[in-house]
Amino acid sequence: MVSLLPPAPVIYLIEPFGGSIRRQNANTPHIFWDDAAVTRGDGIFETILIRRGEPANLDKHIERFRRSAATLDLPEPCAEHWSKATREAIADFVRERGVAPEEVDAKCSWTMSRGRETTGVPTAWLTIRPLSEEVLSQRKNGVSAVTTSRGYSINRGKDGEAEVPWMRVGAKTLNYAASMAALRWARSEGYDDVIYIDPETERVLEGATSTVVIVKKGGRLRTPKPGPGILPGTTQAALFAHAEKQGWKCKQKDVYLSELHKAESVWLVSSTRMYARVRKLDGKKLARPDNAEEIQQLIVDALDSSVREA
Amino acid sequence: MVSLLPPAPVIYLIEPFGGSIRRQNANTPHIFWDDAAVTRGDGIFETILIRRGEPANLDKHIERFRRSAATLDLPEPCAEHWSKATREAIADFVRERGVAPEEVDAKCSWTMSRGRETTGVPTAWLTIRPLSEEVLSQRKNGVSAVTTSRGYSINRGKDGEAEVPWMRVGAKTLNYAASMAALRWARSEGYDDVIYIDPETERVLEGATSTVVIVKKGGRLRTPKPGPGILPGTTQAALFAHAEKQGWKCKQKDVYLSELHKAESVWLVSSTRMYARVRKLDGKKLARPDNAEEIQQLIVDALDSSVREA
Repeated sequence: MVSLLPPAPVIYLIEPFGGSIRRQNANTPHIFWDDAAVTRGDGIFETILIRRGEPANLDKHIERFRRSAATLDLPEPCAEHWSKATREAIADFVRERGVAPEEVDAKCSWTMSRGRETTGVPTAWLTIRPLSEEVLSQRKNGVSAVTTSRGYSINRGKDGEAEVPWMRVGAKTLNYAASMAALRWARSEGYDDVIYIDPETERVLEGATSTVVIVKKGGRLRTPKPGPGILPGTTQAALFAHAEKQGWKCKQKDVYLSELHKAESVWLVSSTRMYARVRKLDGKKLARPDNAEEIQQLIVDALDSSVREA
Repeated sequence: MVSLLPPAPVIYLIEPFGGSIRRQNANTPHIFWDDAAVTRGDGIFETILIRRGEPANLDKHIERFRRSAATLDLPEPCAEHWSKATREAIADFVRERGVAPEEVDAKCSWTMSRGRETTGVPTAWLTIRPLSEEVLSQRKNGVSAVTTSRGYSINRGKDGEAEVPWMRVGAKTLNYAASMAALRWARSEGYDDVIYIDPETERVLEGATSTVVIVKKGGRLRTPKPGPGILPGTTQAALFAHAEKQGWKCKQKDVYLSELHKAESVWLVSSTRMYARVRKLDGKKLARPDNAEEIQQLIVDALDSSVREA
């Protein structure tokens, strides 16, 4: 088991305008006191599954990373540059573990902040480290989730989009303190995870760090349509693209809480955890469907085919 | 002018449970890749004015810092410990400038994050650096502000407080990316600053990084009552405490947009900028009141008396 080896992250610093990439000693800090990531949470990130030594779903992560950057007025990340750094870091990580690449599943995180106040140059880096035991356990055993309001509502204008131009809908920013607080609360109440809903309409939004996918009778997959309060999910997108080829009917549309209880199964999908079946929702058991393994395999195949196609 | 000297920040690292404090070389980074401040914006801060070599309004900053920590389930910051570190850092800063303490006005920032994922120990530090030219200029010349929706609404429960337990109302967290985006937008449109209002009711909330105070006829000061969307202001609190002793009638209550246009004057008050009169609001000129200097002096005296009382 790779994850039982001592965690030794591989870190690469990336020059944001396409210059050098270089290995950073993981025992030495590299972020300054005046970095916007630190002082304002002003930056973007992606978390990418390394699957058998290859980055999974890379195209979709690059696409969202670039969209996040554009939305926040950050410089456009160079896709080739980030891909190259990722592959170099994977090679280091594999070599330092002393195993074959096919045996390495891991977590790769990309971060780009607005940079130091004193230089104005974005700070960019990536890290690779083992998958946590928790992630592996939740894949296997599913999660007990609690639905809750997000605590705030993003105001929508007449077109259904965010009301103000700087409300960064669709950008994956570093401002996750509220989600982390929601998860701490959920755990203190005995749950593993959170599903956000609109308290007034009971419309389902997303998990704290995942996309909600439900499986309905007749081979149908549903996910809430991305928009204010719902980040477009890269794993969900890969899943839907792959599942459609296999004959599943996939649709992005509003999903309501009652549908979660009526569905054949409910899943939280995300990059490194891949899938976690919701086996208990608000304390009520959701029965394991006969096709649970089929759904899991569908998600794994979707990610694996993304590797082959890349 | 202190602020024309080259900026040489003084940084002190603070052991969060009351242990050592030590100087950190400002040219060497001290924050690790897995710090919650970086990965989640999960931490708290205070910005404190150093006024003639002394920390202004220190008690109120300590009080809010401790409240922020409690709200976010962070360890309780030890007041003596932070005060001691602040005074040592000021002494270094003054000595390295080669001027008398009374000549030093500066900006001190306290930060405490949830710490590194791999250690779980909060990271805490403070910095002292010169006031920016922009802050000094806005004190002198006032600002042109634009009112706007915050882009989201914090859901309130029946008691008027935040609906969910983890929505950290009243905590000054590092999640400022949205406010920074609002300020970038305002500047791109030719404004200096932002005043948030509730778009439906036109109730005034706060500035992007300041508290709104209005001066009304008959020697009255008003500020929006803190609550969801309105952080309690330390400068406003010091101002009201001092102004009441001078015979002003001060009240925290709901303020509406129309009142800003009718007021004798409108001010954005905050720690290091102290005050900036709103001289233009949504493109409409707000006439300079006869007592502008009196109001400015009131704020300065409020902060100076906080130093004397400490």
